[in-house]
Amino acid sequence: MSDTLELLGFIAYTELTTFTRLAGAAATAPTSDHQLRLVRLAGDAVNRMERILARIEELGGDADAQLLAFDGTFDDYNARTVPGTWWENLLKGYVGNGVADDFCRIAVDGLDEQTRSLVIEVLDDNRNAEMSVRLLADAAGGDGVLASRLALWGRRLVGEALGLMQSLIVRHDGLNRLVLDGARQRAGETDVDQSWVFAQLTAEHTRRMGRLGLAA
Amino acid sequence: MSDTLELLGFIAYTELTTFTRLAGAAATAPTSDHQLRLVRLAGDAVNRMERILARIEELGGDADAQLLAFDGTFDDYNARTVPGTWWENLLKGYVGNGVADDFCRIAVDGLDEQTRSLVIEVLDDNRNAEMSVRLLADAAGGDGVLASRLALWGRRLVGEALGLMQSLIVRHDGLNRLVLDGARQRAGETDVDQSWVFAQLTAEHTRRMGRLGLAA
Repeated sequence: MSDTLELLGFIAYTELTTFTRLAGAAATAPTSDHQLRLVRLAGDAVNRMERILARIEELGGDADAQLLAFDGTFDDYNARTVPGTWWENLLKGYVGNGVADDFCRIAVDGLDEQTRSLVIEVLDDNRNAEMSVRLLADAAGGDGVLASRLALWGRRLVGEALGLMQSLIVRHDGLNRLVLDGARQRAGETDVDQSWVFAQLTAEHTRRMGRLGLAA
Repeated sequence: MSDTLELLGFIAYTELTTFTRLAGAAATAPTSDHQLRLVRLAGDAVNRMERILARIEELGGDADAQLLAFDGTFDDYNARTVPGTWWENLLKGYVGNGVADDFCRIAVDGLDEQTRSLVIEVLDDNRNAEMSVRLLADAAGGDGVLASRLALWGRRLVGEALGLMQSLIVRHDGLNRLVLDGARQRAGETDVDQSWVFAQLTAEHTRRMGRLGLAA
């Protein structure tokens, strides 16, 4: 149970982080139309966070404490991946969210059915990522220089994101247990270790960059 | 009907503005705990905005266009009321939201019953204002110098806010018609004009400051 609460706390914290990124982008949006769109997406992130926090309370946990246990988790990652342009910022959200989502999708298999379907639903509700795909794919498709810069930036991002997940499971035992449990179920064998998990995350990243028409 | 859509657009725009203010405060919050609280309040503002936008669509209007018709409405007001401190910022939200809410509560009487009850519900859902009341009343109660500074700031704010509402109804005929209709119903007579409305808004402001223990 405490492992479940730990995973829910992590997911709630990632939604809080998504909110902060989108609200910041809204504040500097070039048009009111973009601003409104980003504000609505930021609101969606808060709603997903609230659903996860409500589940923590239902399970008898302290929602705020579970979330705040992850406070600062992305600080180092953010300091190491300051985007130089609007496009780099967009790709950062796409890659970083993508890796965290994939991690959670592996870890989710050990949860009770109700929590599991809630988490899957929350992870699936990624309109933001879809918006990024379209914008990034269009832009990169029409500009070879941008495409190769973004491909390079994507490699940098995924390296940092994988390092972040590594340090995350070192510090949060419950996440480590859940992701290894999930990995065993997926792989259908018992001697699965972290390297299997990271190979999966890397493969998913490659597919994700492929959807943008970019080499991983 | 187009008057109704105009009022709904204005309310949606005020919620967007509330979101922006709360998200900005969250980004500079002194602790993660405060940050989380402000993010949740910002999320509530987006949800209220979405409910109003959904009603515009139900009534056959273009939600984004109705909201964006008010784009920039608060720019001049904001430029003239830059808060010097955290407390001044808090009072600004309390006073500014309060005046806009009171205005909408007068204007709402001319709406169809379903829209009217939605708007009342949205206006009542002002947890943010309640948080401000407690924080401001506590702080002013324990600090006479702060209390008299805030009282002065409150007078400045309400003058600017009333000027804003004045220019708003000059530019938006539908709002003007609705608020005068509402005023006639409230006053129970037909020869009611804008000065009645502004006297009401001022009286409500005085009561609101009284709840903080501050002179208006």
